[in-house]
Amino acid sequence: MSTTIDVPESSNIKGKTILLGAQARPGGWKKGIAIVDFILRLGAVAAALGAAASMGMSDQTLPFFTQFFQFEASYDSFTTFQFFVISMAIVAGYLVLSLPFSIVAIIRPHATGPRLFLIILDTVFLTLATSSAASAASIVYLAHNGNQDTNWLAICNQFGDFCAQTSGAVVSSFVAVVVLLVLIVMSALALGKH
Amino acid sequence: MSTTIDVPESSNIKGKTILLGAQARPGGWKKGIAIVDFILRLGAVAAALGAAASMGMSDQTLPFFTQFFQFEASYDSFTTFQFFVISMAIVAGYLVLSLPFSIVAIIRPHATGPRLFLIILDTVFLTLATSSAASAASIVYLAHNGNQDTNWLAICNQFGDFCAQTSGAVVSSFVAVVVLLVLIVMSALALGKH
Repeated sequence: MSTTIDVPESSNIKGKTILLGAQARPGGWKKGIAIVDFILRLGAVAAALGAAASMGMSDQTLPFFTQFFQFEASYDSFTTFQFFVISMAIVAGYLVLSLPFSIVAIIRPHATGPRLFLIILDTVFLTLATSSAASAASIVYLAHNGNQDTNWLAICNQFGDFCAQTSGAVVSSFVAVVVLLVLIVMSALALGKH
Repeated sequence: MSTTIDVPESSNIKGKTILLGAQARPGGWKKGIAIVDFILRLGAVAAALGAAASMGMSDQTLPFFTQFFQFEASYDSFTTFQFFVISMAIVAGYLVLSLPFSIVAIIRPHATGPRLFLIILDTVFLTLATSSAASAASIVYLAHNGNQDTNWLAICNQFGDFCAQTSGAVVSSFVAVVVLLVLIVMSALALGKH
């Protein structure tokens, strides 16, 4: 009788230790990723907002004017820059709204629901952010260098401040793109390893 | 004695049926996703290759010329279009190289390794494809509409064929972008549900 009682006791203890070990190890690892995710998300909000604000306030009027019109350049001049301001504002708004889901992932590191939700929407908004950043970058390049073959002249000689401000906005938007990329890779790693 | 033999027998059978049921259900679902992934990947290869080829072969020389030069437009005229051709070729090359990993995901639907590898690289190449597609789109828009404020004239009146071909390449590249987006969402769903 004594031997039959001993066997289930020891197997019970073994089962418990294995279960605790399995919960403690990857839980801490996933919690760390979730905290880094939250911090990076805050940085991406700042980068996207900075890009939208910097582009939206780019406006330069030259000090000389003719009888009929003044020389003025603002983001309104380019459809691409308007798209840039709108889409960067949307991306910043999404990133702010995604912060609660990131907090849920910190509190419950094993739940796949919030991570799945975040990775899918992050991918969609990464595409939006990348497209606006790249299209604005190509216009900024044209403004700096012009194009010989089509006779499009560079405007940055006249509108230096305007060019500097829009270039800064493009750089800031690419920071947001890179952060979103890192967020997706981290979420994928956290989803895949379990 | 007869009762002690009966108990392990029945528990053995139960264990087997549960195990078989667990393997058959999600395995079929994940295998289906992996097969769709493979087919979509083939479509994305075609779209990316078509975009690169169409843009790379866009070249139009006008039938009239002056004493000193001919009027010619090709993808070489724009740095953005050169970037487009190179990056679309890289994306197409990656997609071809990713096909074996997609086949591994079909054969072993439960392995997370290939899916994790694919979702991370897909995200990186989605960003590359989106940036080249968007920057080319903004140049194509300028070629069609021009810009009043900077005195950049539309060139599509003269170079109609060139504009049609580059516009087609941009549309084809956005098809590749959308397919890559769908691939990432599908991989994330397959990784998350288990």
